[in-house]
Amino acid sequence: MELFNVLTVQQARETLKAHLPARTKEEIVPLLYGLNRILSRDITARDDVPGFDRSTMDGYAVRARDTFGATESLPAYLDVTGEVMMGQEAAGPLGAGQAWVIPTGGMLPPGADAVVMVEYTEELDQHTIGVTKPVAPGDHLVRRGEDVAAGSVVLQAGHRLRPQDLGLLAAVGVTQVPVLEPLRVGILSTGNELIEPEQPTTPGKVRDINSYTLYGQVVEAGGIPTLYGIIEDHFDSLRNAVVKALAENDMVLISGGSSVGARDATAKVIETLGSPGVLFHGMAIKPGKPTIGAVVEGKPLFGLPGHPVSAMVVFDLLARPIVESAGLHRPRRIFPLRAAITRNIHSATGRDDFLRVTLRRREDGALVADPVLGKSGLISTMVKADGVAHIPLTKEGVEAGELVDVWLF
Amino acid sequence: MELFNVLTVQQARETLKAHLPARTKEEIVPLLYGLNRILSRDITARDDVPGFDRSTMDGYAVRARDTFGATESLPAYLDVTGEVMMGQEAAGPLGAGQAWVIPTGGMLPPGADAVVMVEYTEELDQHTIGVTKPVAPGDHLVRRGEDVAAGSVVLQAGHRLRPQDLGLLAAVGVTQVPVLEPLRVGILSTGNELIEPEQPTTPGKVRDINSYTLYGQVVEAGGIPTLYGIIEDHFDSLRNAVVKALAENDMVLISGGSSVGARDATAKVIETLGSPGVLFHGMAIKPGKPTIGAVVEGKPLFGLPGHPVSAMVVFDLLARPIVESAGLHRPRRIFPLRAAITRNIHSATGRDDFLRVTLRRREDGALVADPVLGKSGLISTMVKADGVAHIPLTKEGVEAGELVDVWLF
Repeated sequence: MELFNVLTVQQARETLKAHLPARTKEEIVPLLYGLNRILSRDITARDDVPGFDRSTMDGYAVRARDTFGATESLPAYLDVTGEVMMGQEAAGPLGAGQAWVIPTGGMLPPGADAVVMVEYTEELDQHTIGVTKPVAPGDHLVRRGEDVAAGSVVLQAGHRLRPQDLGLLAAVGVTQVPVLEPLRVGILSTGNELIEPEQPTTPGKVRDINSYTLYGQVVEAGGIPTLYGIIEDHFDSLRNAVVKALAENDMVLISGGSSVGARDATAKVIETLGSPGVLFHGMAIKPGKPTIGAVVEGKPLFGLPGHPVSAMVVFDLLARPIVESAGLHRPRRIFPLRAAITRNIHSATGRDDFLRVTLRRREDGALVADPVLGKSGLISTMVKADGVAHIPLTKEGVEAGELVDVWLF
Repeated sequence: MELFNVLTVQQARETLKAHLPARTKEEIVPLLYGLNRILSRDITARDDVPGFDRSTMDGYAVRARDTFGATESLPAYLDVTGEVMMGQEAAGPLGAGQAWVIPTGGMLPPGADAVVMVEYTEELDQHTIGVTKPVAPGDHLVRRGEDVAAGSVVLQAGHRLRPQDLGLLAAVGVTQVPVLEPLRVGILSTGNELIEPEQPTTPGKVRDINSYTLYGQVVEAGGIPTLYGIIEDHFDSLRNAVVKALAENDMVLISGGSSVGARDATAKVIETLGSPGVLFHGMAIKPGKPTIGAVVEGKPLFGLPGHPVSAMVVFDLLARPIVESAGLHRPRRIFPLRAAITRNIHSATGRDDFLRVTLRRREDGALVADPVLGKSGLISTMVKADGVAHIPLTKEGVEAGELVDVWLF
């Protein structure tokens, strides 16, 4: 391992992927808590849904053949010999020439094979109806098992549960679901200049921003963040804090102080923690160059830049996909928008550039991206921006009017 | 009020809007819980960020004018008379011809007005450097208040807090945030045929699906759902349950049993609850026709169809936007996709049709929508589908190949 192994974004992702096992940790949660979670196993239906032939109309349960040839002028006359009550077993049997009153959702009595809509009947007396239009077997009913057949796989491992999936699982009586455990993510901020948001500012001190932006990003990606607070720039303090965070989480984010010294301390600490350790130190990216990527005993650790903008960009590129792979929510950022950049932007080749932009529609309807000016140390530039435009590492920049990919916040 | 007042989707939305006040209920939450919440008031910064002029480079704090004209062959010689320590006040003052060692993020000592990068200096002895490139006042530093000026409105009421907004609020020392309270939504299922998912199925009984799909939909829209379970089709039982749910929530969803009787009971109960009561009974929509919309003392109540597909479609069209207006999350469904339908679909004019579809890319890259066949009572059709295609009420249907709006699940 070289001390300074600078990788492109693509290389960094591949390197991490090669060292991280796929997430398989599962937990069993009550059905309602399964929303948006990823199934860790196939789900098989134990029961047919519905569990009996069921009417989809208000009308009469009949034997279809008894209605064949019926017309308005020559109705088929049937004896009304029973009534299906909602939610009760229809014992039947229904014999030839007979009809039972049935409500929508009612159980078809044995012997019946179709339902005549009430609109196509006439009541002759209390015990006799005339059917004015024939029905075919199966008309106006849902067959037992037509929605879900017992024994079938209704949802597969890897599927993310939507509201309708909860409904389906309720229907087949599954009230506990096996899902992937989300990643727990420990967040540490280092830097002697940092104070907590609750503290009053004094000369030389600034409030910790990265703990809060990273907390929000972890939640959005579907992970469970824990803040370990501000750690002083001191090898032993930092090492103790990282060891604790690593033991208690599946991923650790260490956002560096602004100084070179703080960054170097992070790398030195990670090197002592286990195998394989630091995978890269430095990325061909702007902002976000001073990034450390590491894996220790199967868990990813990131040494993120101290600048809030840089830390956010790097989290999105490297950490977010890992958290989302077992995330509590559906990933929101699936694809970028295409927008025309409104200024010439220079960029070095061999480096991925991410440019804060605001988006707006031009009068002709085209989507345009205005770069947000301001130093990458300023969190306000991220607040003003609607997203980041990507200038790929193959390009020397973009000219005004050129289309760029914009990832919305 | 007519007994059967059938409205289009658009009319139903406008009618509800006219009877519902805009959400203003607010609560104060700790900063970290503010993620994705909507600010109920403007936030003003109490402090400048940063609170002092701050270096953005490792190097030397200087008076810019002392470096004017410096070149590699004729450096400007400065006395190193101090060092800025990270996180500590730089007391200064820095006088003419002097330089202080300064780290990235360090406080500029009074008297200095620029930073020379270490790359453009040469160390002559322990107390003297040569500057080989001039700097202008303000170079390589962030001015006090440059990120955020004290007294400025940093975020406005109505803004939804993103991760970077949490960072900004941390920076200005705001640790408690005023946000809109999410809507509490009570969910009731009626129907004598219903049993809980935990119960074994028996002839005539089916498990409650709508409580679970609606629970998921309310959570996705950013509301707080409470399930009130299965209520029997009986006026007093239903009325008592609805009164309780209405008192404890901001919105009530009553999903009807499949039968006409159950639906009528819901309307009768709502009519006894308060003003203005039922606003419409029936909608020009498929599926979802037997929908009841009501407002009671400023709170919306919906009598949703018993068919799971219909209940989901109607929730999305009418209830979701109301819940999202003060939701805990960012709305996910902002715009529909355009896809070519693959079959002729008939539709009556004067009625909005929503068709379950799966989406796929054709070989030529075009997005196409395949209708999912199956009765609207089957939850499995919603599980198979990727979204619903909208056939507007002005159309008599769509022909194969025609583009339709598809709202993804």
